[in-house]
Order: sequence, then C-alpha cells, then structure tokens
Amino acid sequence: MPAYDSNNVFAKILRGEFPCYKVYEDDHVLAFLDIMPRAPGHTLVIPKAPARNILDISADDFAHVARGTHKIARAAMTAFKADGITIQQFSEPASGQVVYHLHMHVMPRYDGVALLPPASRKEDGKVLEDNAAKLIAALK
Amino acid sequence: MPAYDSNNVFAKILRGEFPCYKVYEDDHVLAFLDIMPRAPGHTLVIPKAPARNILDISADDFAHVARGTHKIARAAMTAFKADGITIQQFSEPASGQVVYHLHMHVMPRYDGVALLPPASRKEDGKVLEDNAAKLIAALK
Repeated sequence: MPAYDSNNVFAKILRGEFPCYKVYEDDHVLAFLDIMPRAPGHTLVIPKAPARNILDISADDFAHVARGTHKIARAAMTAFKADGITIQQFSEPASGQVVYHLHMHVMPRYDGVALLPPASRKEDGKVLEDNAAKLIAALK
Repeated sequence: MPAYDSNNVFAKILRGEFPCYKVYEDDHVLAFLDIMPRAPGHTLVIPKAPARNILDISADDFAHVARGTHKIARAAMTAFKADGITIQQFSEPASGQVVYHLHMHVMPRYDGVALLPPASRKEDGKVLEDNAAKLIAALK
C-alpha cells in the first residue's frame, strides 16, 4: 500500500488550505458535508491523524472516528428527518476509495429512495450551507 | 424506532442458541462470517451489548465495534489476499438493514470485482469453514 500523501484534499481541508462545510470538530476528528452528496446531508467524518484508510490508521484513531460517526448519525436523523442511516468506509482503489485520507460516509436514508451513484453531481452551495446549519443545530 | 428485539438471529448467536463461523471474540464484540457473503471472507462484527443499530448503541459500544472492525479488516487483507476493504453498516429498513442487531460488514475487495448483491447466495459450509480458519490464523 502506498504511504500517506499529505497533498490529498482532506489533508488540505484539515490544514485550512481548502474550504469545507464544517459541521463538527473535536481534538480527534473533523466532520463536513460531502459536496457531491449521495443523499441530502451526506457527511464525512475524518481523523485529524494522517491515515490513508483502515489499513494504516491506529485502532485508537479509528475508535475516535467511530465516536464522531455515532454523533453525526444521530444528529442527521433529526436534522434531515431521515428514516435510516447508511455508513460506508472504503480502503484502497479496489473498494472504490477516491480520496486517500480515511473518511467515514454518513448518509441519511429515506424509505424507498436509493442512494445516488458516487460523485454523480455537485450540490448547490446554498443547499450545502442550509444543510450544514441544520446539522450543526441538531448537534447542539 | 422499534425497541431492540432479543429474538433476532444475532442475539441467538450471542447466546449460543444458533451456530456461527466464529473468527474473533473479546469482552465487547463477536465476529463471524456472513453465510451469504458478498465477497469471499465477508465478516460481520457485532457488539455483545444489545443494540438495534447506530441509533441506539452507546458511543462506547460503537467504539468497541470499530476496534473489532479495525482488527478484522487488517487480518482479512492477509487471510484473503485482498486488494482493499469495504466497510458498511446499515440502520433501519430505509438503509437496507435486515437483521436488527447492529453489525458492521467487513468485505474484502479485489481490483475490478464488484460485490455480489446482498443475500444473493448461501455459501458452501466447507468454504466458510476454510475461510474462518484462514482469518483466525491471520488474526494470530
């Protein structure tokens, strides 16, 4: 497996070199909206520690990501009036991983509505802003 | 959301009332092979605590599930000579959840090979036995 490359877009977001629709942050994780959501409110939870995926992250840091994911999933149910939640995490190209900084997908689900295919369309900035505000409110 | 129902099949596995191809167990989690694997070596990691899904499990118990998942994912890469790993977790019918005891899917992936659709076929017992032995060996 290649080594962690600190030029990936999520590393840039962590360093503040690239913007994001931030919804949550603590000492160990950052959560922000996916700008190409597969469902309304699709959120990514990433470790602050440099990790390519589940194959090089420490068990402690992965547990921190899980705690952030747990928090976001519950808040997303309220914020987006969802019927369920799908969690996904991809490691290496064979799995469909595209950005090589570990990220957990938290996707609100609705009865009878399929997920959009990955990266099918970029969401409108205003919608993302509104969704971030809803999720931040539900996290309080 | 309905309350946890202790008659689900994974609760029966935890109580020893139903068999499984066990690969790992500690104080907090049990891991066993999915008998309808979407990929060879498809493994489920479940909490010992009664939890329907991410919406009712405690943050601590979900972190324990994450630690178990982390362990299984790495061992599965070796055991099944995989190119990558896909992790999935479903909460509520809208997400595709079928058994209502929280479970994390750990699915070995191969370059250019799609996952089988969920529950498409029951694996042969001998194959499951061999795969469990391989994963147990890689966990050592």
